[in-house]
Amino acid sequence: MQRILSTELARHTGETVTVAGWVHRRRLLKSVAFLIVRDAAGLTQVVVTEPELRARIETLGEESVVELTGTVTANPAAPAGVELTAPALLRVLNAVSVPLPFDLHRPALTAALPTQLDQAALSLRHPGRAGALRIAAAAAAGFRAALEQRRFVEIHTPKIVASTSESSVRSGVVAGRSDGESGANVFALDYFGRPAYLAQSPQFYKQLMVGVFERVYEVGPVFRAEPHDTARHLAQYTSLDAELGFIADHRDVMAVLTEVVAAMTATVAERTGAAVPKVPAEIPALHFAEALRIVGAPADEPDLAPAHERALGEWALREHGSEFVFVTGYPMRKRPFYTHPQPSDPVWSNSFDLLFRGLELVTGGQRLHRYADYEAALAARGEPTGAYRGYLDGFRYGMPPHGGFAIGLERFVARLTGAANVREVTAFPRDRHRVTP
Amino acid sequence: MQRILSTELARHTGETVTVAGWVHRRRLLKSVAFLIVRDAAGLTQVVVTEPELRARIETLGEESVVELTGTVTANPAAPAGVELTAPALLRVLNAVSVPLPFDLHRPALTAALPTQLDQAALSLRHPGRAGALRIAAAAAAGFRAALEQRRFVEIHTPKIVASTSESSVRSGVVAGRSDGESGANVFALDYFGRPAYLAQSPQFYKQLMVGVFERVYEVGPVFRAEPHDTARHLAQYTSLDAELGFIADHRDVMAVLTEVVAAMTATVAERTGAAVPKVPAEIPALHFAEALRIVGAPADEPDLAPAHERALGEWALREHGSEFVFVTGYPMRKRPFYTHPQPSDPVWSNSFDLLFRGLELVTGGQRLHRYADYEAALAARGEPTGAYRGYLDGFRYGMPPHGGFAIGLERFVARLTGAANVREVTAFPRDRHRVTP
Repeated sequence: MQRILSTELARHTGETVTVAGWVHRRRLLKSVAFLIVRDAAGLTQVVVTEPELRARIETLGEESVVELTGTVTANPAAPAGVELTAPALLRVLNAVSVPLPFDLHRPALTAALPTQLDQAALSLRHPGRAGALRIAAAAAAGFRAALEQRRFVEIHTPKIVASTSESSVRSGVVAGRSDGESGANVFALDYFGRPAYLAQSPQFYKQLMVGVFERVYEVGPVFRAEPHDTARHLAQYTSLDAELGFIADHRDVMAVLTEVVAAMTATVAERTGAAVPKVPAEIPALHFAEALRIVGAPADEPDLAPAHERALGEWALREHGSEFVFVTGYPMRKRPFYTHPQPSDPVWSNSFDLLFRGLELVTGGQRLHRYADYEAALAARGEPTGAYRGYLDGFRYGMPPHGGFAIGLERFVARLTGAANVREVTAFPRDRHRVTP
Repeated sequence: MQRILSTELARHTGETVTVAGWVHRRRLLKSVAFLIVRDAAGLTQVVVTEPELRARIETLGEESVVELTGTVTANPAAPAGVELTAPALLRVLNAVSVPLPFDLHRPALTAALPTQLDQAALSLRHPGRAGALRIAAAAAAGFRAALEQRRFVEIHTPKIVASTSESSVRSGVVAGRSDGESGANVFALDYFGRPAYLAQSPQFYKQLMVGVFERVYEVGPVFRAEPHDTARHLAQYTSLDAELGFIADHRDVMAVLTEVVAAMTATVAERTGAAVPKVPAEIPALHFAEALRIVGAPADEPDLAPAHERALGEWALREHGSEFVFVTGYPMRKRPFYTHPQPSDPVWSNSFDLLFRGLELVTGGQRLHRYADYEAALAARGEPTGAYRGYLDGFRYGMPPHGGFAIGLERFVARLTGAANVREVTAFPRDRHRVTP
């Protein structure tokens, strides 16, 4: 008999069906036993009164994998309005005899986070932890769908690069940022006896591919040897990157990003039912100088402190009813060398951050597109062009005005779900203290 | 005026439109000049007779980025049946003054492959090279769509692992293979002062995630420190991985794979117009022992040589009209320790290869799902379980019967397009001699 999922039971009321899944919980009362079977879709309550079956169930530890057949019976008190009665245990697909290190059937996992992460293969089965990963999958699907509809082409770029400069191309973005990020943190690798490095971002490659497809995106891992052990840093995370050519300036990038974030939240809501914020058709945008005035910071502040970002989040909600706000024009000296300056006043840049609930969610902007401008920008920062040779060469051959953005998937999910630690929404996180499982 | 793409021109015949793109070619005849402008969608022929504009075009090198306005005029001799006449050069978005190292306008690139790869940002603009990457994007989209429809959940797994055993979990698959692959080739990494390794496959993690979602997939980079410099090995490639639980045996995996490959080829055909092979609803399948008889190899051969695979490809085409053929039951001693044996005769395995045009395209099979079976399998191979601790622990807590497969994206595209070298269909390939650009 074809197995059906827990969520399909109600459609089969009165019929005999087969279900399969994990023993989520056993409640052994005096006259009746309830067996809760978990599958990928949800829970099935099985009512056991027959003594021989009850005796077998008593020996089956939680997380044993079973296949049962029974009659679907309406019961308004059961989790899904139906339960399985008169069951027969068809097969024990895998018996678990060891005790679990923590319970999976409680509303939230009670084990400390390090224990959850040590036992990730088990803790991720908790509906809360699994739900966060489903939200991540939906968010990535929404990201891709929105970009494919706008003729972006998916690319796959190298994660191993020849120089730390190329790996840490984003260093200018983050060096000296008030949130403690630093871009020099590159993992070194033995590459056939030579040194090489893990890429901190696909920045170089997505820009070069604008010369091929005009519009490109990538969903892939990026690597940061973060020395900090914080609730929001990972040594590997999933970066949702996009880059587009033939733009007027950064505002064209912000318009695409707004549509992409709206598609991501809509897909999350549609697929998972999670509560998501409203994304305005036009997200309020403030110039950096104006943002400083609003938060009461000195006009010569080079960056926004976390308290400033929180204040701007409150301002956007109060003044515009928006949980999102763009800050544009960040000072050039705080942005990477490839950033396009603001033509009217090159102290500022054609870059932006998108804040969500008072925290930076996305960084992006317009990039330089002329080879000579790259040479000048590196020279002004006292950086030799040699280390960027493989990158810069591509700009000799005609690149259109372009820009892009990058969204950290795990941070996005953590903020959407309110998780206090990004590790709670990452399957197998990597940090300076953790490289297993 | 809103820019339109080259492929939209015919719909605007008689109108004045704006196009933008790269100077693909200039043909400077005596009384007229033809400017071919390339955008992401295709080519536009621009007819220049006005002397001043012609003089400007003569100074613009190939690959300069331009924006033009003109009248769309029907001309059956023009590439798309229309051309742009009475043009005005609105803007030079980026002027190229250096000569190109090779021509992009010829039907095929004449530069040697190493030159193409050194100048990837330029060579990938050639419609042939770009077309292969569009095929890759379409194949990955078809892979995802087919699996999402079948309730597979996308996962993102660690690319940095703690031990070479975990990285080279596939070593059993490939050790001693006649094609010269070897699984011990792992990249070592400095992980915050400790050794760690780049993952050769998401094998561990996708199996563990079957315990969470029943069905999972991942599209991501895998890393092999291949010592061989061949036409089909890369140090990084894109692996299309899937794994599913609650299967009867490997035939359930083969059925899903058949549907997935059909979706991949259909999406490639639909999006790119490329010629694709027909995927039979049921791909012919041969047991390994039968395959040896058909190719006339001794019954004790442990593996199929490339000549055998070619002969089986010819057999499948001749006998079944299929360009695909499954070989099942490979000897256990040639498969990795996690492979499920064939219950009727454990000399053989519940594994398979999918051959496409006489070459292995996909490897997969049923895996062990009981903790005790893993312990026994490692003991029988003389391997200590300690190195696999993070992997094996997950199997203590109830894993359903499961299996899966992995498709190498670049190899798939190379075989589909007939490319002689997998580097021709990879944007920025990595191999033992190449780590730039």
